[in-house]
Amino acid sequence: MVDKIGKNKDNHGRLLVKCPDRPGIVAALSNFLFEHHSNIIESSQYSSNPENGTFFIRIEFHTENLQENRLKMEEDFKELATRFSMNYRFTYDNDRKRTAIFVSKEPHCLMELLWEWQNGDLDTDIVVVISNHENARGMVESFGIPFHYIPANKEIRKQVETEQIRLMKEYHVDLLVLARYMQILTPEFVRHFPNQIINIHHSFLPAFIGAHPYERAYDRGVKLIGATSHYVTNDLDEGPIIEQDIERVDHRDHVHDLKKIGRKVERRVLTKAVRWHLEDRIIVEENKTIVFH
Amino acid sequence: MVDKIGKNKDNHGRLLVKCPDRPGIVAALSNFLFEHHSNIIESSQYSSNPENGTFFIRIEFHTENLQENRLKMEEDFKELATRFSMNYRFTYDNDRKRTAIFVSKEPHCLMELLWEWQNGDLDTDIVVVISNHENARGMVESFGIPFHYIPANKEIRKQVETEQIRLMKEYHVDLLVLARYMQILTPEFVRHFPNQIINIHHSFLPAFIGAHPYERAYDRGVKLIGATSHYVTNDLDEGPIIEQDIERVDHRDHVHDLKKIGRKVERRVLTKAVRWHLEDRIIVEENKTIVFH
Amino acid sequence: MVDKIGKNKDNHGRLLVKCPDRPGIVAALSNFLFEHHSNIIESSQYSSNPENGTFFIRIEFHTENLQENRLKMEEDFKELATRFSMNYRFTYDNDRKRTAIFVSKEPHCLMELLWEWQNGDLDTDIVVVISNHENARGMVESFGIPFHYIPANKEIRKQVETEQIRLMKEYHVDLLVLARYMQILTPEFVRHFPNQIINIHHSFLPAFIGAHPYERAYDRGVKLIGATSHYVTNDLDEGPIIEQDIERVDHRDHVHDLKKIGRKVERRVLTKAVRWHLEDRIIVEENKTIVFH
Amino acid sequence: MVDKIGKNKDNHGRLLVKCPDRPGIVAALSNFLFEHHSNIIESSQYSSNPENGTFFIRIEFHTENLQENRLKMEEDFKELATRFSMNYRFTYDNDRKRTAIFVSKEPHCLMELLWEWQNGDLDTDIVVVISNHENARGMVESFGIPFHYIPANKEIRKQVETEQIRLMKEYHVDLLVLARYMQILTPEFVRHFPNQIINIHHSFLPAFIGAHPYERAYDRGVKLIGATSHYVTNDLDEGPIIEQDIERVDHRDHVHDLKKIGRKVERRVLTKAVRWHLEDRIIVEENKTIVFH
Repeated sequence: MVDKIGKNKDNHGRLLVKCPDRPGIVAALSNFLFEHHSNIIESSQYSSNPENGTFFIRIEFHTENLQENRLKMEEDFKELATRFSMNYRFTYDNDRKRTAIFVSKEPHCLMELLWEWQNGDLDTDIVVVISNHENARGMVESFGIPFHYIPANKEIRKQVETEQIRLMKEYHVDLLVLARYMQILTPEFVRHFPNQIINIHHSFLPAFIGAHPYERAYDRGVKLIGATSHYVTNDLDEGPIIEQDIERVDHRDHVHDLKKIGRKVERRVLTKAVRWHLEDRIIVEENKTIVFH
Repeated sequence: MVDKIGKNKDNHGRLLVKCPDRPGIVAALSNFLFEHHSNIIESSQYSSNPENGTFFIRIEFHTENLQENRLKMEEDFKELATRFSMNYRFTYDNDRKRTAIFVSKEPHCLMELLWEWQNGDLDTDIVVVISNHENARGMVESFGIPFHYIPANKEIRKQVETEQIRLMKEYHVDLLVLARYMQILTPEFVRHFPNQIINIHHSFLPAFIGAHPYERAYDRGVKLIGATSHYVTNDLDEGPIIEQDIERVDHRDHVHDLKKIGRKVERRVLTKAVRWHLEDRIIVEENKTIVFH
Repeated sequence: MVDKIGKNKDNHGRLLVKCPDRPGIVAALSNFLFEHHSNIIESSQYSSNPENGTFFIRIEFHTENLQENRLKMEEDFKELATRFSMNYRFTYDNDRKRTAIFVSKEPHCLMELLWEWQNGDLDTDIVVVISNHENARGMVESFGIPFHYIPANKEIRKQVETEQIRLMKEYHVDLLVLARYMQILTPEFVRHFPNQIINIHHSFLPAFIGAHPYERAYDRGVKLIGATSHYVTNDLDEGPIIEQDIERVDHRDHVHDLKKIGRKVERRVLTKAVRWHLEDRIIVEENKTIVFH
Repeated sequence: MVDKIGKNKDNHGRLLVKCPDRPGIVAALSNFLFEHHSNIIESSQYSSNPENGTFFIRIEFHTENLQENRLKMEEDFKELATRFSMNYRFTYDNDRKRTAIFVSKEPHCLMELLWEWQNGDLDTDIVVVISNHENARGMVESFGIPFHYIPANKEIRKQVETEQIRLMKEYHVDLLVLARYMQILTPEFVRHFPNQIINIHHSFLPAFIGAHPYERAYDRGVKLIGATSHYVTNDLDEGPIIEQDIERVDHRDHVHDLKKIGRKVERRVLTKAVRWHLEDRIIVEENKTIVFH
């Protein structure tokens, strides 16, 4: 399998590492990769503080016969990881992440994701779309993706989530994208998917946390509206921010104009966040993200 | 006196009107101006709601021998204003507004204003700068502008404001710009200058209202930082927003980086707001602004 | 028929005027509309030069029983138009413009237009899509829009254009959008549709006129890539510019990345230009556009 | 000497490397630094092509007692550099670059540089300002910087440049910034300062190469105007681009408005380019730049 610019995806991998900062980490990692016949393609690092801080690195590498060697490489890595107290993960281009999308009535974010995915710009398998409305079924199924309708409301939340979790497991989902899914998820649900749920909130957080952000932006008379993609935690709209963007508005824009303009921002902000997650460009550290562009 | 593009400023004026919307307003206004030998140069209008809303218009006009005729024109206008229940004001290029600037320690917004003013981009007389620190004196006086040092803190707020108000009157100030003035103004002070005080807040309001917005932006892990210029009302950071803008930041930016990046946004956001105010482009309506660019 | 914010579209119209500037135009127009029981909803004007220039105005108005009265209104207007040497046109919300789209292989601009149209954000009937490739047929027909495949190349250009013009007439097309149609149109073709053909060029014109702009942007090492929508004239990529926008790139972006990033810019720039055209917000003056936002 | 975030500048250095790409470079470099008691603070790399391309890396490091050890470190590095055919340079925070600025009549770019420098945002010594006009003398000297007036025109170019080069040497200049210096420099002059002269061109290159870009932007009716900072080579406006940015304009903006708006873009684009150069973030490769932000 060969991608657009001619790299053999079979031999590509990524290594993400987080550990206490101290001299010699980069040397140790690059020696390790060199000794395992791996060439570093791209590398980004960040240190929260030169003294006594935390060190983060993302390395993209190319290894001859990676598929045969990856198990041994991971096994060998354990010693180094222990030595430096590393929190780490290896991922491989060949193991495409499996993505589920939850959506309510408004389809624009779902559409943008499907479209980017069809263009080859999202390196994932979209394995299922779940909605509490029927209206997106036709479109989703036209892409060959299974669509599940699960009605939702406060009263039946527990049984809804049980069914949703069952489907997540059935489809072996790695990433759940809330593409304007307007139901609240319980802490029980969220606990199943730590740093695996990405939401789009239709405001520039922390402004307008909660419901009806466009209405409140209109009432406040702001001159810019925004959107924020973030990982979902137990605290509503308080999870680690991945990406934000804004668009200019003025006094002539009523609430329905803000919504229309906002849809464009939401589409591009959510898509970026999902792409970066899929490419393992994001490390969550406490309530923030480190994004290696 | 002739400005850069050759218009005689003596003959230029502006008319701002707000009134209940109903048919015939534009016709009445344009007839009035035509009959008073005035040519409409630029006109912008806005109606909050086609039915039963409020109508706003800003007209720039050119009148032969305006200086001789303006009193009669204003006198004649009263009948029309009464007929349509208009709230209005005439202003003239020749009557330059008189601006005071309050500043604390950080001089970047003050500098930008002085610079734009020196370039001829702010059509005003900057008549006085008042600060609770001495450090800007040299720079301000090098522009030939009087500088007053008035120490300020909570305990002496009342007497400080008394002195400030005295100076505002002595200098016949029309507009007061808070160019990073870090003292709170009391409702008594604000009451003297309704819609005449412009502040720059160093966040994208309503996010991070109050003190230390950059520190809080850093703690929240936002991906954009902003600045907001607004008219000052009694409610801290709640006044009508005039302009907002943002700049992108990332995980590598510590608080002092946010401040440095933020300075650039603050400078341009405040300067725009001040320019629009000086050009009578802003109408305040309840807690919002209508800005006719 | 009632639109989203409750206005009756039957009674809405627009008047665009261009004439030599002189005192009294606004008064004459607003009197005319007032006497014809029309209320001005929105009005924007521009004068190329206060003395001896050209005057442009766009007025949106609401008229009771517009459908019965429009013929008489247009008839009555002729006297005024003659008096001021006006070039003008009336348009009505009820007369939706009929749009054709030409596309070649890359479907992203077509998709965005269809999508915005389906959302109700483009007030037009998309009556036909014509392509020199078959690949968009399924998608277009799924929207219920006729799709015509007309193979194209230099050798058969004349007969291709004859067939295209025949279809334009058959479908009563008012606006032709070139949504990444990669064939050159002859002056004969263009002459049939003055200021009625909107193209998207994948560069920030006048940089990279002609073929392969992304390749040339890559070779020059630019830090921003752009897109330009413009009316098509006989001179390749030289027509009046309607809208432009850019996106940031860096040294890591190869040509295929520029293309991917550029697609997003192209989509939004073309859609804006088409929307403004459909809302009669654009007046072409010599080789420039006046766009009343 | 301690900078704002508490790092001891005496012990900070940077290493920039360019060499043929092959496995093991990062390992070799990081081992070298580790063995020389240096901790990597920040590292960015780029490979023009994973197979057979060129490899670039910028490393910021911290070394205990760097001042005593740097000579030995540089000496030791030669072996490694030879082994990998590296083109490289070490720089040290302690060796501040010495900057000269050339300016003609318009002072805005000069002002912005002086200001940023005074704020501590440009880590350099500005050692001299040279102008073919006298008007900036007062301002420059108020910053304590020597100002030299050298009249310039085509006829006396040779003797002017001789004098300029003499001053460059006298002041030991490392970087020459053309802050809107409107005289052409000869190839002889440019040859003395390879990749050491940064110019600001007042257009979005390659649009509007050469003279009067704002006038030509106005004539073309563009909707965005831009500015470009680039290294100066023998070919006018063709040197490697460092940074570009744009600002939106519309049909109401005459040439003098474009110039006014453009000044703001020029200021920020030039300042960014100069900062990145001073921080050794730029590597020139053929006619492009790699900028490690």
